[in-house]
Amino acid sequence: MEFIIQRDSLINTIATVSKAVSSRTTIPVLTGIKLVASTEGIILTGSDSDISIEEFIPVEKEGEVIIDLIEPGSIVLPSRYFGEIIRKLPGDQVKIKTNDHLTITITAGKSEFNLNGMDAADYPRLPQIEENRVLSLPSDLLKTMIRQTAFAVATTETRPILTGIMWKLMDSELTFVATDSHRLTMREAVVESPDHLTFENVVIPGKSLVELSKILLDDSRLVDIVITDNQILVKIDHILFYSRVLDGTFPDTSRIIPKNGKTLMNLNTKEFLGAIERASLLAREGKNNVVNLVTRDDNSVEVYSVTPEVGKVIEEVNPVSLEGEPLRIAFNAKYMIDALRAVDSEIIEISFTGAMSPFIIRPSDYNKILHLILPVRTNQ
Amino acid sequence: MEFIIQRDSLINTIATVSKAVSSRTTIPVLTGIKLVASTEGIILTGSDSDISIEEFIPVEKEGEVIIDLIEPGSIVLPSRYFGEIIRKLPGDQVKIKTNDHLTITITAGKSEFNLNGMDAADYPRLPQIEENRVLSLPSDLLKTMIRQTAFAVATTETRPILTGIMWKLMDSELTFVATDSHRLTMREAVVESPDHLTFENVVIPGKSLVELSKILLDDSRLVDIVITDNQILVKIDHILFYSRVLDGTFPDTSRIIPKNGKTLMNLNTKEFLGAIERASLLAREGKNNVVNLVTRDDNSVEVYSVTPEVGKVIEEVNPVSLEGEPLRIAFNAKYMIDALRAVDSEIIEISFTGAMSPFIIRPSDYNKILHLILPVRTNQ
Repeated sequence: MEFIIQRDSLINTIATVSKAVSSRTTIPVLTGIKLVASTEGIILTGSDSDISIEEFIPVEKEGEVIIDLIEPGSIVLPSRYFGEIIRKLPGDQVKIKTNDHLTITITAGKSEFNLNGMDAADYPRLPQIEENRVLSLPSDLLKTMIRQTAFAVATTETRPILTGIMWKLMDSELTFVATDSHRLTMREAVVESPDHLTFENVVIPGKSLVELSKILLDDSRLVDIVITDNQILVKIDHILFYSRVLDGTFPDTSRIIPKNGKTLMNLNTKEFLGAIERASLLAREGKNNVVNLVTRDDNSVEVYSVTPEVGKVIEEVNPVSLEGEPLRIAFNAKYMIDALRAVDSEIIEISFTGAMSPFIIRPSDYNKILHLILPVRTNQ
Repeated sequence: MEFIIQRDSLINTIATVSKAVSSRTTIPVLTGIKLVASTEGIILTGSDSDISIEEFIPVEKEGEVIIDLIEPGSIVLPSRYFGEIIRKLPGDQVKIKTNDHLTITITAGKSEFNLNGMDAADYPRLPQIEENRVLSLPSDLLKTMIRQTAFAVATTETRPILTGIMWKLMDSELTFVATDSHRLTMREAVVESPDHLTFENVVIPGKSLVELSKILLDDSRLVDIVITDNQILVKIDHILFYSRVLDGTFPDTSRIIPKNGKTLMNLNTKEFLGAIERASLLAREGKNNVVNLVTRDDNSVEVYSVTPEVGKVIEEVNPVSLEGEPLRIAFNAKYMIDALRAVDSEIIEISFTGAMSPFIIRPSDYNKILHLILPVRTNQ
């Protein structure tokens, strides 16, 4: 293998595929990045066996020559060193050439690196994906849907299925659901999809989707998503992003969403978020970060927390509207903060069904987002 | 104690005095910030017993009212909570009021915090400083001198005196010296000082000076430095910065600086720094980060390193000039990188006295900076 490549292109591509490389893998070859050079261009691959990212650099891009291929071939290079070397080399071009016995020489200007590699034949094959079920989504919509749900996945492996985000497509409505069993978040979107295309219980690890969202651009260009029973493949320009799909059945969450609220309030999102953040300042260390919310007779809402060793906070919030039964409830401030930060609307609507029942937070002007939080029992 | 204060002013002052507060202190009252309110203004103090920082907020600043004092008094507040609360409160003004029994109420808008405090009488007194020996320095010069020496102090406590920077003033020349016994850095500056003022062996902890440099502004306004046998006090506007002075005698470093170089080279600083950084990329983990330097017959210089498990690097550098005996030497790349980064000049001059002797790095156009590095024995 021997080629000369624009350094910039190579830096960007290494940065992309490195997102899939984990230093904690037990499979030595996966600490590396696979390079395959052919007459069309170079393919780089990184993988931690959960996620794999492959990016293709074409020989020519928009009329500009990116790669001068001298001899095709392949190798796996240690990702940490390879990335740092390419970033720190001088000049605009880099020459990469394999020697006998799995070493390569990287040259740029008056710099010469000899690096030990591994055999590309030992690198695991990427999953073979049948492209029967393909959904096209605007890049920015997919990115937003991930941002608005990924925070709610379980971070412990007690119930592995809850570490994923459940995807469902029914009647052209795409739904993402995430829950850690203390709170739940649901995001829906009407999408253009082939009539026959429906799926449910496609549960993708939250971590995979967070990595994917780092690659997704903030524009409305379409990305293709191929869905199979055990893998998804997302195609973004010259990038192929693979993630495994979790085994198991995601809990049916539709039944736990209460239908009839007994106390309804509309609140200014920013003002309420500020009050909750302050109320949680002292509570964070004790008692699971619990804050209390009480409706007052004068139609205002009080948010408070008490941490005897440190002190207490009382926040008064004036809701835009307040209806229904008086209420006294306690909840984890972090869940509320996460939910409020994920909402882009000015006003939110909270619907409570008593002190011991889950409550619902929705943007007041947009019914495609729903957050549900389970309250906490408290003696205060 | 009761007063109303501009929130901005209080945020800035808390940020400044917090630099002296350590969460790892074993003296409970030092986890707090002391507040003293009088008719002139408020004084805040933070301390970890090595460093103490005191800042005064006057009642009025440039005609603008900063503080509305209602009742004088004092208290010590937990620094972490106090800082975060003031930062997160709404609005421009904050009211702080002590209640009976060492608690205070902090109010802003519809937010009310009750915070447990400690008795200001338990807070250690700041050192009493006799202002006999006072040196005035431009703020930016002091900041630069710290930046150019602090990296070379010892980070282990094997010889505590080496964790400090030695200050000396003789014939209006101020000298800073730092060494960890493997390398040394010296920075001199001609300063305006009273004729009678001389001192030497004033050794100030490197950590203290790094904190001080964060407070120093990048302008030429003069700061006053009061020097005593066991404390220094630096006065910056309304800030008093105290640091203890280390006990013991700093080693006499003048004799270890070799006088006659046998191999002399001038190098482009950036180019040489790039070559050393790349040569150290693979060496960092093995063998103390050693890189090798060899003069070649064609008057070029080769920098290389070999790490058998990973690979090797060869860098060719063309010196601006090269004179004297041929040389083959090995040294710790980190020391060289630190020294080169501390130099602001385009060209540096290195003077070697053989493979086993310390060598000297100086900016070619400026004789007030000197770096000395001890070579490493190697078999390569």
